[in-house]
Amino acid sequence: MMKMPEIIMRLPDWMTAILNTRPGLLTSVNDRMRFVIDLARLNIDHKTGGPFAAAIFDEAGSLIAPGVNLVLSANCSVFHAEIVALMLAQKILGRYDISDGGKINYELVTAVAPCAMCFGAIHWSGIDRLTCGARDEDARAIGFDEGSKLSDWVAALNDRGIRVARDVLRDEAIAVLKEYVAKGGILYNAGHRKNNSK
Amino acid sequence: MMKMPEIIMRLPDWMTAILNTRPGLLTSVNDRMRFVIDLARLNIDHKTGGPFAAAIFDEAGSLIAPGVNLVLSANCSVFHAEIVALMLAQKILGRYDISDGGKINYELVTAVAPCAMCFGAIHWSGIDRLTCGARDEDARAIGFDEGSKLSDWVAALNDRGIRVARDVLRDEAIAVLKEYVAKGGILYNAGHRKNNSK
Repeated sequence: MMKMPEIIMRLPDWMTAILNTRPGLLTSVNDRMRFVIDLARLNIDHKTGGPFAAAIFDEAGSLIAPGVNLVLSANCSVFHAEIVALMLAQKILGRYDISDGGKINYELVTAVAPCAMCFGAIHWSGIDRLTCGARDEDARAIGFDEGSKLSDWVAALNDRGIRVARDVLRDEAIAVLKEYVAKGGILYNAGHRKNNSK
Repeated sequence: MMKMPEIIMRLPDWMTAILNTRPGLLTSVNDRMRFVIDLARLNIDHKTGGPFAAAIFDEAGSLIAPGVNLVLSANCSVFHAEIVALMLAQKILGRYDISDGGKINYELVTAVAPCAMCFGAIHWSGIDRLTCGARDEDARAIGFDEGSKLSDWVAALNDRGIRVARDVLRDEAIAVLKEYVAKGGILYNAGHRKNNSK
């Protein structure tokens, strides 16, 4: 008899304290990005994953769901920070399209521009706004791979009604990437060509 | 106090019977594809999701993990068939890179060519072989969207050491897509532009 396991995804325990002391509305984009960059740094400090974090906010700047990279701790290559945040937001809101058919606006804030997988996931999530800190090339500069992405991925999202802002606190986001490497963080990789996913 | 839920992913109950009566090795690619197309049809019949299925096989043709589209039933836009199969295979094998650093070969068989998200996920999964039934345009022909993909996505995977075979039992895979529409299946969509994800 062949039985398939359940997959359980949960945030690291250290996130509880963050959520209990979180600020109220983060009305400025810099504040939202700083919150996310702090999560990325805490994910390194607690050794729960790569130097990547993301979060979904509603239009007022209220946190709906955070996400951190859980690839190593969950042994799951799908659990990038953006995917984790999107899955949680959909669970919390009770719908796979968080926009509810385009009626409600949500923003995905990510410390580093999305990889090829997360770029694709954004299509189906219902967010209408993507805000990025570090760029693809910043992740590549420390040895992570972003995958084969359209060179004009920003335009492709724009064409689908998703606005994209880049370089928000880029230097602070880069600093976390460098900190990961300086602390000997694993550039985990997958596959026959030793690609490093973020 | 803000508390984040757990996300639990499990296959539909009807899959148990399939797994208990599954054949041994599926040494021919047509047999592996037929198994996957049958799963896609059963996913329609049981109303557990879209007309999409996938599975991971080892090099001998032994089933490691099946997947079906669970977007509607799980309220999660990430749970495409390919993602479900990859997550299960990684859980079962106990590693996020199922190739274990390129030492072991695994094939992802999917009834329909991967969307933009699943294309990206393939990079990080550790599979070295992708086998597709229906093409992107076949999914689009019934109203599903594949997302913004590189036009040369097959070459992009080849460049990373991942072989791609297409059009395996394409007509049978298309027949399942048409059956879904004929039975009034939901072309679920996400976002402000009403994109339909597969």
